[in-house]
Amino acid sequence: MRNFLSAEDVPNINELVQKAIGFKADPTGSKLSGTGKRMGLLFLNPSMRTRLSTQIAASNLGMESIVFNVGQDGWSLEFEDEAIMNGTTVEHVKEAAPILGKYFDVLGVRTFPGLKDKAEDYSEFFIKQFVKYSGIPVVSLESASLHPLQSLTDIITITENFKEKRKPKVVLTWAPHVKALPQCVANSFAQWINAWGEADFVIAHPEGYELDKKFTGNAAIAYDQSYALKEADFVYVKNWSSYSDYGNVLSTDANWMLTNEKLFATNNAKVMHCLPVRRNVELSGEVLDGANSIVTQQAGNRVWAAQAVLSEILNG
Amino acid sequence: MRNFLSAEDVPNINELVQKAIGFKADPTGSKLSGTGKRMGLLFLNPSMRTRLSTQIAASNLGMESIVFNVGQDGWSLEFEDEAIMNGTTVEHVKEAAPILGKYFDVLGVRTFPGLKDKAEDYSEFFIKQFVKYSGIPVVSLESASLHPLQSLTDIITITENFKEKRKPKVVLTWAPHVKALPQCVANSFAQWINAWGEADFVIAHPEGYELDKKFTGNAAIAYDQSYALKEADFVYVKNWSSYSDYGNVLSTDANWMLTNEKLFATNNAKVMHCLPVRRNVELSGEVLDGANSIVTQQAGNRVWAAQAVLSEILNG
Amino acid sequence: MRNFLSAEDVPNINELVQKAIGFKADPTGSKLSGTGKRMGLLFLNPSMRTRLSTQIAASNLGMESIVFNVGQDGWSLEFEDEAIMNGTTVEHVKEAAPILGKYFDVLGVRTFPGLKDKAEDYSEFFIKQFVKYSGIPVVSLESASLHPLQSLTDIITITENFKEKRKPKVVLTWAPHVKALPQCVANSFAQWINAWGEADFVIAHPEGYELDKKFTGNAAIAYDQSYALKEADFVYVKNWSSYSDYGNVLSTDANWMLTNEKLFATNNAKVMHCLPVRRNVELSGEVLDGANSIVTQQAGNRVWAAQAVLSEILNG
Repeated sequence: MRNFLSAEDVPNINELVQKAIGFKADPTGSKLSGTGKRMGLLFLNPSMRTRLSTQIAASNLGMESIVFNVGQDGWSLEFEDEAIMNGTTVEHVKEAAPILGKYFDVLGVRTFPGLKDKAEDYSEFFIKQFVKYSGIPVVSLESASLHPLQSLTDIITITENFKEKRKPKVVLTWAPHVKALPQCVANSFAQWINAWGEADFVIAHPEGYELDKKFTGNAAIAYDQSYALKEADFVYVKNWSSYSDYGNVLSTDANWMLTNEKLFATNNAKVMHCLPVRRNVELSGEVLDGANSIVTQQAGNRVWAAQAVLSEILNG
Repeated sequence: MRNFLSAEDVPNINELVQKAIGFKADPTGSKLSGTGKRMGLLFLNPSMRTRLSTQIAASNLGMESIVFNVGQDGWSLEFEDEAIMNGTTVEHVKEAAPILGKYFDVLGVRTFPGLKDKAEDYSEFFIKQFVKYSGIPVVSLESASLHPLQSLTDIITITENFKEKRKPKVVLTWAPHVKALPQCVANSFAQWINAWGEADFVIAHPEGYELDKKFTGNAAIAYDQSYALKEADFVYVKNWSSYSDYGNVLSTDANWMLTNEKLFATNNAKVMHCLPVRRNVELSGEVLDGANSIVTQQAGNRVWAAQAVLSEILNG
Repeated sequence: MRNFLSAEDVPNINELVQKAIGFKADPTGSKLSGTGKRMGLLFLNPSMRTRLSTQIAASNLGMESIVFNVGQDGWSLEFEDEAIMNGTTVEHVKEAAPILGKYFDVLGVRTFPGLKDKAEDYSEFFIKQFVKYSGIPVVSLESASLHPLQSLTDIITITENFKEKRKPKVVLTWAPHVKALPQCVANSFAQWINAWGEADFVIAHPEGYELDKKFTGNAAIAYDQSYALKEADFVYVKNWSSYSDYGNVLSTDANWMLTNEKLFATNNAKVMHCLPVRRNVELSGEVLDGANSIVTQQAGNRVWAAQAVLSEILNG
C-alpha cells in the first residue's frame, strides 16, 4: 500500500482487519518494523482520537511521530497552483509538502471541507496536493469527504462483535446536531461497508440528506428510521449536513435521536458512533451508558486500525 | 498508590520524599520500570513547569508521554452527567475519559477553578469525573482546589534545606497580586504540611483571606505578617483570592510584598514560591535574586516529585 | 562550542559544514552521543522548518526534545531586569531560564524583533537573557537580528552545489513582500558568507534597504538588480524591511521579483530562499518550479545543520 486515502487503496479489507486484530492482541510484536522511521502528523484542523491513536500506533511499531498543527504552530498554507500570494497564506503546499517529504518517511494529513463548494471539497484537492508534492506515502487523518481510518476501525469493531455465519444487518442512521457537519464519516462508512461486502446495509435519513451515490452505491435508503432499525445488528449513528443542498442543515428533528425505545425494534443492536457525540442530541445518554453501546471499544480500536495501515505502508 | 489527587492518597509522605531524593541522585536508575507504559497529559488550562517536569519524570522512568491541550488541540469537554449537549461543549467526559483510559496507562489531568461557584470548585467535580470514567490511575497536575505535585515538591525542598533536629518554622504568607488567583497552592501546601507533621506551621494573611479549615487544620493564623515571620526558617510566598468572599480580591496591599528588610526578622529564612512569580509585586526582585531564595531549586525538584509519584503508581 | 548565536561562535565554518554533510550521509551514526540528553525548544514565535528540523536532528543524535510554545502553551515572559510585574507578563526570564536550565541539557530559543526599536532588537536582549540566566548552552532558533542555523544550511547547500575551483558568485537580492519582515536572514547570510570567505558576494536591493554594515562588511552593494545578477552562480532571494528607516516597507516594487527571464543573465544560477516564500510576489512560480531552484534541498539541509551544531555542543 502506497497511500491510504480511501477504501480504494486497500486490496483486501478483511486482511487489513485481521492484521489490526492481531496488533490488538500483540501491540508491540512488530516494534522493530518501524525503527528509524518518522511520521509527520499534519493537522489543518484539530483532532483528539485521530492524533492520539495514530501517535500510539506509530510508537507501537517503533516509529517516531511529530505533530504539527498548521495555523496554530505555523502558518496558513496556499493550495492553488497559480496563486499570487499577496494575501494571508504564507506558504505554498508546493514548498511545504516536499520539505515534509524530506523530513519524514510517512505523512499523515488531516484536511477538512469548507462545506461551501461541493466540487472543491469532493475533489479532495487539499490532501491530493500533499500526495502530489510530498514524495512520500500519505495517510488520511480525515479529509474533506472521507475518513478511512475511522471506517477501518468501524469494520474491525463490527467483526469483533459479530460471530454468526450470516451477514449482519448494519444501519447507518442520520441524527440531529446543532451544527453543519461534513459528510466524511458517513460517506466513508458507506464506501467501506460496500467494498467489504459482508453486511446487509441500510442508510436511514430524512429526505434531502441523501449522500453521494458514488459512496452509497446499492445501499438501501430509508426515510423511515423505525422501519430501517428493524432487526438491525448494528446501528451507526451520525449526523451530516446535506449533500444535495450542500453544507446546509435541513432538519434538526429531535425524533431522529436514537433512544433505548427505538432499540427495542432491533436485534439487540450494538450502537456505534465515531465520536465526539452530542449526548441527548444525537444519541440519548441512556443508550450511550447502556449495554448496547460499543462506542468506547470502537474508539479504542482506532489504534489498531492506524497500526495496521502504517504497517502495510512500511511494508510498501 | 492508585490515584494522586491530594495528600490523602499518600500513605507515608516521608517515604515519598525520600524516594524523590533518591531519583534526584540517580534519575534513570529505574528506567526499566516504565518501559512500554504511556502517560497522557491532559491540560484544561496551560502549564509550563508541571508539563515539562512530568514529561521528564515519565521519560526518566522509561515511560512515553503525550500531551493534549484541551480547547487548543481539541475541543471543549462537557462534565454534567445529564447534559443536553446542544451548546458549545462537543464531547462528554463520559466518552473522553474511558477512551483516554484505553490509550494510556496513567492519566495526568490539569483542571482549574472557575472561582465563581465555591461548592463546585471545592467538590473537585472535573478531576473526579476523570477518576470515575477513565478506568486508569489519575495524577492531578493541579486541580480546582489543590496542587499536590507542587506540595510534594515543597516538602522535598524543605527536607533538603533543613538538617537540624528540631522542627523548622514554616510560614506561608499571602502576597499581593494583580489578578484573582485560585487557593490551590496555599490549600495544598497547608494540607501537606499538616499531614507531614514535621513543621511548626503559621499562615499569615490579611483578614478575609482565611483558607478552608479542612486544609489549614490547626495551623496558627496571623494577620500580622511581621509577627508571623519572626524566627521563620522557611517563608513560602503566595497570593490567593478570598475563600470566604469567594474568588474576590479584597486587598492589594503592597505592604505584604516580601522584601529583604522583612527577612531580617527571620532565622535567615529560605524563601519559596511555586512560580510563576510577579517580581516586585509578590516578592521583591532583591529577595528573588538573593541568597535566601530557593525558588529555582524548588522548581527543579518538580521533576523528582513527579517521578516519585509515577513510580509509586507504576508499582500499583 | 558553548552557544550557537551567530557565526562568531563557530571556530571553523568549513569544518562545521563538512560535519553536517557527514550527517547527511549517515544520519544516525552518532546516535549514542546524545543518549540521555534533553533539549528544550522554546518558541516565542511560531516555526515549522526550524522546529521540525531541530527535533529530527536531536533525535538523530539520540537526544530527547520537548517543544514549548511560549504564549500558546504557557504565558508571556518578562525580560526587563527591574520590572514591576503588575501588567500582562506573568513570569520573568530570571526565573524561567534557570528552571529550563535544570530541566534540559541544551536550550533552543526562538525570539523575534519588534521592528520598532532598532537598538533593542539589535542588542539581542531576549536571547542573551536566556544565555545569561539558563546556565546551559543556548542555540538560536532565530533571534531578533540573526538566523544562524539558516545561514549554516545555506553554506552547506552552496558547498553541495558548487564543485569548481574558483569562488562562486553569490548574490543576495531583496524581493518584494506584503509585510514588514525582519532583517535576520539577510543579516545572518551576509555575516556567514563574509566569515566563510569563499564567495564573491554581492547584495542587491533598492535604495534605503541597506543592511547593518557590521554584517555586510565589504560586500559589494548594488541598487541595480540586473547588474548584480550577471554571471551569478547563486541567487539568494529574500525580503527584509528597512534597517535605516527601521522596520518600514519603503518599496513593494514588483520589478524586484525574481523571474526566469532575469536568470538568463546569470551563470545558470541556483536559486535559494529560506522559506516560507510568497509565490509570485518574491519569486515567480516558474522559478520555484524550475530546475534552477534548490529551495527544497536547502530546507532539507536544515536537519544536518542543526545536527552538526548540536553535535558540537554535546562535544562541549
